Amino acid sequence: MTAPGRVTLVGAGPGDPDLLTVRGARRLGEAELVLYDALSSEGMRDLAPNARWFYVGKRACRNSIDQDVLNRLMIKHALRGRHVVRLKCGDPFVFGRGGEEVLALGAAGIPVEVVPGLSSALAAPALAGIPITHRGIASSFAVITGHHEHTYGPLLDGFAPGALTLVVLMGVRKRGPIAARLIAGGWAPSTPAALVMGAATDKAWRWIGPLDALGAVEIPAASSDAPGMLVIGEVVSLSERIMSRVAATQERTSRGTSG
Amino acid sequence: MTAPGRVTLVGAGPGDPDLLTVRGARRLGEAELVLYDALSSEGMRDLAPNARWFYVGKRACRNSIDQDVLNRLMIKHALRGRHVVRLKCGDPFVFGRGGEEVLALGAAGIPVEVVPGLSSALAAPALAGIPITHRGIASSFAVITGHHEHTYGPLLDGFAPGALTLVVLMGVRKRGPIAARLIAGGWAPSTPAALVMGAATDKAWRWIGPLDALGAVEIPAASSDAPGMLVIGEVVSLSERIMSRVAATQERTSRGTSG
Repeated sequence: MTAPGRVTLVGAGPGDPDLLTVRGARRLGEAELVLYDALSSEGMRDLAPNARWFYVGKRACRNSIDQDVLNRLMIKHALRGRHVVRLKCGDPFVFGRGGEEVLALGAAGIPVEVVPGLSSALAAPALAGIPITHRGIASSFAVITGHHEHTYGPLLDGFAPGALTLVVLMGVRKRGPIAARLIAGGWAPSTPAALVMGAATDKAWRWIGPLDALGAVEIPAASSDAPGMLVIGEVVSLSERIMSRVAATQERTSRGTSG
Repeated sequence: MTAPGRVTLVGAGPGDPDLLTVRGARRLGEAELVLYDALSSEGMRDLAPNARWFYVGKRACRNSIDQDVLNRLMIKHALRGRHVVRLKCGDPFVFGRGGEEVLALGAAGIPVEVVPGLSSALAAPALAGIPITHRGIASSFAVITGHHEHTYGPLLDGFAPGALTLVVLMGVRKRGPIAARLIAGGWAPSTPAALVMGAATDKAWRWIGPLDALGAVEIPAASSDAPGMLVIGEVVSLSERIMSRVAATQERTSRGTSG
């Protein structure tokens, strides 16, 4: 009879081990098994050198194995007494299926803890020098997903043109239709827009320009399979000035050494 | 002649030192002067025991001193060769005036770095067991400020009822008018709503109930001056089930000791 184990859902943030939370880094150090889903997490291995690392992800931070299979995997190892860390891109509760995992683990009687992480929805713009709010420019923002037009279309139609900063996750492929729909809804074609790929990873690349040019942007092959997002709104116009001041913002350190 | 110093804007997250990023904690350890604005940051002092700590804030994480005065203070100390950390509630670029500070420091020729933090807009719901997105329930969210009805009113009117999770910062006082406006716009009076005060601090308190009861909620005196927010949407209905599973989510450790 083994003492019961536990599962910790740890938000990995945008990919840089240095942008984990202090608690998240500590939980990795305590883990016996790490189930990870992001290529960008490779640099985090040194934080849990004695754990088994098992890859359950694919590009763009989504599970490659079925969620039910993954839940059963976590439960099986926890029931064997192990401390399992489920290392998730960004934040577990922001497009991360953390809620589903907590409920499944809870139903199986497994103790579960959630350690928040930096959501890429906010951290990726920040790392591109875009303050998602800025006094006098934008005091609200919305984060939507760009998978299906029947879902995002009505949302886009409801946003008063230019009244908020708009972040579109999983919408890189639909950047043309999304830009066109906003312009049709009254957004100025010159509204500053950004395409941010692979923030905080070695695939980082970004484009900034007017909304009506977004659809035609070509993404370099080296960054095309990295997670990406659109950021649309007047705050994007600050990016160049801010980035010229904070080169260090993009600093990436591996292995938690000084930087 | 002194070598030039530098300023690092560090996002403190929701208040628990354990929820700082690894890089943010390291920058505190390197700081000679820390300008902090949140009472909840008191527990972070042990991370920078040799620095001078200077309080520039007031409740609800806003500056108490004028922004221009604060900018001049940062510049003055950096020009004397010091490493100044500006420790800000949440994330510097999410309602944090980080963009303004970067531009002011840049104009003065001061090297500046921005270290993202967990935005309270996402972390506070998470710590209350509310996944801001959840498959099949909500795949979008908006974060707005509830200061002025002429600003938030048109935004609220544009959100298709129930189509996204709504987070309202600085809107605790206006919870009655905000709920009424949403219901007038077609949101169901039974829509689950939460009032979250002082997440990740010892003033943490929350209420969960239907949208049409939000206006009449009374906040206990002990929590009434803590930063608070409203969370409105079907995902709030998951809170009780998730919190019953993740008591440890609310775990607060001080001083970065184990937990």
